[in-house]
Amino acid sequence: MRIGGRTDQELRPMQITPHYIKHAEGSVLIEVGDTKVICTATVEERVPPFMKGQGKGWVTAEYSMLPRATQVRNQREAAKGKLGGRTMEIQRLIGRALRSVVNLEALGERSITLDCDVIQADGGTRTASITGAFVAMAFAINKLATDKHLAKFPINDFLAAVSVGVIGDTPKLDLNYEEDSKAKVDMNVVMTGQGQFVEVQGTGEDAPFSRKELDELLALAESGIQTMIEVQAGVLGPIADRIRGAQHAASQ
Amino acid sequence: MRIGGRTDQELRPMQITPHYIKHAEGSVLIEVGDTKVICTATVEERVPPFMKGQGKGWVTAEYSMLPRATQVRNQREAAKGKLGGRTMEIQRLIGRALRSVVNLEALGERSITLDCDVIQADGGTRTASITGAFVAMAFAINKLATDKHLAKFPINDFLAAVSVGVIGDTPKLDLNYEEDSKAKVDMNVVMTGQGQFVEVQGTGEDAPFSRKELDELLALAESGIQTMIEVQAGVLGPIADRIRGAQHAASQ
Amino acid sequence: MRIGGRTDQELRPMQITPHYIKHAEGSVLIEVGDTKVICTATVEERVPPFMKGQGKGWVTAEYSMLPRATQVRNQREAAKGKLGGRTMEIQRLIGRALRSVVNLEALGERSITLDCDVIQADGGTRTASITGAFVAMAFAINKLATDKHLAKFPINDFLAAVSVGVIGDTPKLDLNYEEDSKAKVDMNVVMTGQGQFVEVQGTGEDAPFSRKELDELLALAESGIQTMIEVQAGVLGPIADRIRGAQHAASQ
Amino acid sequence: MRIGGRTDQELRPMQITPHYIKHAEGSVLIEVGDTKVICTATVEERVPPFMKGQGKGWVTAEYSMLPRATQVRNQREAAKGKLGGRTMEIQRLIGRALRSVVNLEALGERSITLDCDVIQADGGTRTASITGAFVAMAFAINKLATDKHLAKFPINDFLAAVSVGVIGDTPKLDLNYEEDSKAKVDMNVVMTGQGQFVEVQGTGEDAPFSRKELDELLALAESGIQTMIEVQAGVLGPIADRIRGAQHAASQ
Amino acid sequence: MRIGGRTDQELRPMQITPHYIKHAEGSVLIEVGDTKVICTATVEERVPPFMKGQGKGWVTAEYSMLPRATQVRNQREAAKGKLGGRTMEIQRLIGRALRSVVNLEALGERSITLDCDVIQADGGTRTASITGAFVAMAFAINKLATDKHLAKFPINDFLAAVSVGVIGDTPKLDLNYEEDSKAKVDMNVVMTGQGQFVEVQGTGEDAPFSRKELDELLALAESGIQTMIEVQAGVLGPIADRIRGAQHAASQ
Amino acid sequence: MRIGGRTDQELRPMQITPHYIKHAEGSVLIEVGDTKVICTATVEERVPPFMKGQGKGWVTAEYSMLPRATQVRNQREAAKGKLGGRTMEIQRLIGRALRSVVNLEALGERSITLDCDVIQADGGTRTASITGAFVAMAFAINKLATDKHLAKFPINDFLAAVSVGVIGDTPKLDLNYEEDSKAKVDMNVVMTGQGQFVEVQGTGEDAPFSRKELDELLALAESGIQTMIEVQAGVLGPIADRIRGAQHAASQ
Repeated sequence: MRIGGRTDQELRPMQITPHYIKHAEGSVLIEVGDTKVICTATVEERVPPFMKGQGKGWVTAEYSMLPRATQVRNQREAAKGKLGGRTMEIQRLIGRALRSVVNLEALGERSITLDCDVIQADGGTRTASITGAFVAMAFAINKLATDKHLAKFPINDFLAAVSVGVIGDTPKLDLNYEEDSKAKVDMNVVMTGQGQFVEVQGTGEDAPFSRKELDELLALAESGIQTMIEVQAGVLGPIADRIRGAQHAASQ
Repeated sequence: MRIGGRTDQELRPMQITPHYIKHAEGSVLIEVGDTKVICTATVEERVPPFMKGQGKGWVTAEYSMLPRATQVRNQREAAKGKLGGRTMEIQRLIGRALRSVVNLEALGERSITLDCDVIQADGGTRTASITGAFVAMAFAINKLATDKHLAKFPINDFLAAVSVGVIGDTPKLDLNYEEDSKAKVDMNVVMTGQGQFVEVQGTGEDAPFSRKELDELLALAESGIQTMIEVQAGVLGPIADRIRGAQHAASQ
Repeated sequence: MRIGGRTDQELRPMQITPHYIKHAEGSVLIEVGDTKVICTATVEERVPPFMKGQGKGWVTAEYSMLPRATQVRNQREAAKGKLGGRTMEIQRLIGRALRSVVNLEALGERSITLDCDVIQADGGTRTASITGAFVAMAFAINKLATDKHLAKFPINDFLAAVSVGVIGDTPKLDLNYEEDSKAKVDMNVVMTGQGQFVEVQGTGEDAPFSRKELDELLALAESGIQTMIEVQAGVLGPIADRIRGAQHAASQ
Repeated sequence: MRIGGRTDQELRPMQITPHYIKHAEGSVLIEVGDTKVICTATVEERVPPFMKGQGKGWVTAEYSMLPRATQVRNQREAAKGKLGGRTMEIQRLIGRALRSVVNLEALGERSITLDCDVIQADGGTRTASITGAFVAMAFAINKLATDKHLAKFPINDFLAAVSVGVIGDTPKLDLNYEEDSKAKVDMNVVMTGQGQFVEVQGTGEDAPFSRKELDELLALAESGIQTMIEVQAGVLGPIADRIRGAQHAASQ
Repeated sequence: MRIGGRTDQELRPMQITPHYIKHAEGSVLIEVGDTKVICTATVEERVPPFMKGQGKGWVTAEYSMLPRATQVRNQREAAKGKLGGRTMEIQRLIGRALRSVVNLEALGERSITLDCDVIQADGGTRTASITGAFVAMAFAINKLATDKHLAKFPINDFLAAVSVGVIGDTPKLDLNYEEDSKAKVDMNVVMTGQGQFVEVQGTGEDAPFSRKELDELLALAESGIQTMIEVQAGVLGPIADRIRGAQHAASQ
Repeated sequence: MRIGGRTDQELRPMQITPHYIKHAEGSVLIEVGDTKVICTATVEERVPPFMKGQGKGWVTAEYSMLPRATQVRNQREAAKGKLGGRTMEIQRLIGRALRSVVNLEALGERSITLDCDVIQADGGTRTASITGAFVAMAFAINKLATDKHLAKFPINDFLAAVSVGVIGDTPKLDLNYEEDSKAKVDMNVVMTGQGQFVEVQGTGEDAPFSRKELDELLALAESGIQTMIEVQAGVLGPIADRIRGAQHAASQ
């Protein structure tokens, strides 16, 4: 039995609290089981040097964990004086995933930085970060669209992410920390509202995996992500309609 | 008129949510007006190298702000690769203040690290950190006292901190960010439950200040800190009695 | 037409020069088209701190590019004072992939470091590094097995990697730099000699991808990797038989 | 008895050697007992980025100790690759204190950097640095006033600093290293020639202190600082009159 | 007997493979015995800040060793986060030496960076780097002269370098690693084609050396360098004539 | 005419003030013209890891300049977060030079660190550092010999250093900063009291130099160093005899 009595095909309870931090242009607290992440979106009227003069915007992300988000305290990366490889990998993933659903031309020469700070960790922090950051970004872009009268709404589709894994011989959806540490195959999947893949990252460090296992994991992920996108849409309210409108326009 | 209609002698509304982070030995969310800080206490059964073999414990603190805790986003110190001077100054202050009320011999060869992470900033983040960290530390030490049957309760007194300042010609208690940026004199005061000073840090960068102003500021701080200690005691419940007991024993 | 006249299902010409660096316990120069990587394996009779006392070995990797491996000179990471996120991501991937085919217990408390230094880059440097590093590691482990009379040969299976991608609407095998920069979907696949997946990393930054595209890419990767493993086996000669023997023993 | 037979209310012998370093726009060697600090003032015709375009100048300070200024050799911060918290705290304090007596508008868009390098340490290095840096700055600004015909002399008042502390139950002025390490309360006070406070930093790490102790310490500090300012005025000669003139003009 | 049967006055076998790396403007692989260095020359149409606006070019060098170039693996400087003193010393030497034969005015406001990456080390890596980098630079400058129609060919003379040392009481030319570690005096000499000295660096850490020893070592170095320059000229072909022409013009 | 009316064969006025810093085991202030360096020697009863268990001592050096030792202020290396190449080169040179006259076996498992801090620079700072550090080291070792009754006096010979250069066509001894910046050839020579070479570092960045020029420079350096050693011996007094005794014993 999994904690909380959920089945292998079920997500943990998930909640998104909007406007969690007052200064940010967009922000949420996302809770997936005991994993809690503060996601803030900051809009700046400039782009990084490599993007200058292209008439396009940029979306990037930073990720961090509070030292005591985990069972054993982690030394701060600021104190160590450098970002670890895991952190860099995750923040590159979050940024890449979010950019896949943003029309950078429609955004204009602006940048949006998503800060994902894990205040409590219990597995799936990178996927919760993507799912929460999408909502924070949508709030910030909506504010921009309202304030600046953008010609076109720059978000083309919903986006969410989930982890799946094989424990023993059983594929399971949305692993918590304890499950994750026992999984022989571990996969993170990022998908759009239209059911297309944005990222598929599967790792069989402890044991390689078969094509059949891969197929089962992808199916589980797809069903979980659909549920998550419903939660996002509920929190976004009328903004969800603007996204659907942009998606409809883009697909024509 | 100050925000919320408070007088110059009044604190902002203050709230301490205990046990905010599940993994830590002690933790709180402290809110002082719109300033919000997560304080966690981590107990480790070892001391830093310079303390080894003395039969005494150590208490230290780390302080950080989420990038978007502030009105304008701050670059992460982890990304810059080093701690700024302000951060170092603050974390040294928090550690020093907390140690002043801990009997390090009674703690034994253990260390307690207080992580103070500001998730939303509106002035007074260092004083809120001290006030919150004291409670988180008390929870952690109480757990230790319960689990390890320490011979003596190692906390001798309550401890809280507040900022005061002179705006125009008026001394005011507990400045928010906007007030702080207009103050010509800025002072942070840390005091014990017995009304003794632990730290007095007054700065007149924009204009030097007179002895009379100093006296008025100290009086304001003292009254504010007494109120804060009442809030701490309420949250700590029976642990407050253990502190009062240790204080009584120490003063004899 | 692709450079060299190859079809979309064909690898670039690939060559592995064994024993390329005289000091290392194992080394190769791997050339995949114009991509050239020196892979060396270093055996040390100690393990990292987190592995101590478990009676198991460790395999890790480092990756770097000479500044002028690329069309435009890159600043050295040593001069910048830190490793970039891309480098960290790649070296974590190489290490993880290699460990999946090594029996760490059979290796004993030793570590093997694979240094993958790209001297000329033309796409697919991380997959060439994995494919070359596997051979360098096999030479080093074979030497160890010969010198130390290990009870069991510690490599369980072959391992190789290739990149695949979608350009326009066409899935293609083994992208060179120019193709890679035009691909809308980019995937790196690491597989064993038995045809099991070790890593699947697909990214649709410029456009999300469908399940059908994913399936086509996996099939292309599988066929390319089989060819690569034949090249590896040819270079390894009798060592290839020891790997097949260990694989046979492990599967029983 | 204190070293040299001085009373608890007496400063150590103090000497300021002007023009100690030939290249600097202003420089002194200040000796307070066995504490010796070289202070140099560098004038540059530019301001830091955050001050640009405001028509105002800037004053900043850096502080360091030679490795063998102390009884036990300290590792160089340049070798460690970062400034320690104590150094940052001190250099922020020196800069802030000096700015409090400089009219930044009258200085114009220029910056003055005070380098305080302790060549021998025996307690009170930060207060000796402030006291010496004030004189070095006055020489440099006077040279500027002479060369550039500034409309107004930019120094408004004298400035000096001293440490005070409680040893046993006795408040003492100007602690040397040995006294400092026995003090239960330690306070640094920075004051102007007019007897106003610029900084009050009192710390009771080993034991909190009462209001009465605070009052006694402030009185001791005030008397010591008056003596120090007389020494400064003697070294500055006619420049002292220009400061008094500016002070007189400012107070009207 | 020395390895390979060479006499004390003889160089190791030396080979220069031109155009070793396809992306660089000039490149070679230089092999001196078992020492192998990849040298690439990168031309950029800009100069470092301190050279701007002088109408002159700049030549600089970077040096590194692959971790397993040596018998025992060296930690990467990129992983350590800083360049070692030996590396800095060597890359400053290479840059300085190359600049001595380049007419920086004739080069125009461009910079040439020579990257010297040691892939296998067996003594004399810095002198091999200079000798190889000269050829890579000549290829790059010749390309520039061809493409940009420089008014004057900017290389004035040939340049090569060799190490010499005293082992026991015998001066020897071109030490390999094993000889180098036994030498009591160690000297690196850089000379031009005209037989003038550019750098003489002699060190007697284990024992000081006499004037007579110095004279013998200089004579050995001179003869070795002449041979090296013949090899360079052979590889450069018609470019060697352009260098001789510029040399002839400069000496008139 | 040179400054102060000295001839091309003459040193600048040179003065060594012994026991300049009270805490160090040995210390001097050395002044060579307007170049002033504080040299301190620190003795520690341990050796660096790579020297452990060999029954031998170690001598090392660190070098730094105060920011305003020079005409234009230099940024602190501590603020930059790393040592520059020039600093590393110089401190390696000082350490190597000093070790050449120390019998490391006779020193025992101890280390001596020489800190050379330039407080005012006017050319020749590295050679003044070597010359001054030798005296500071001799004081420290003499103290050690007195306190610890070393079986043998560990300094075998005197050691001093000087710079020489060619300006126009004239070789000159002991260049000041202005001369140094005009020199086309620049050479630093370190010699023992017996007239043997320890280091010869000649650089012809602006123009290569002939054998004849090299010979003239070496002769000038030798005569200057002899004078310097007389000054050292005068300051060392009876310690000079102990060095001569050890030298006599070593040469038998």
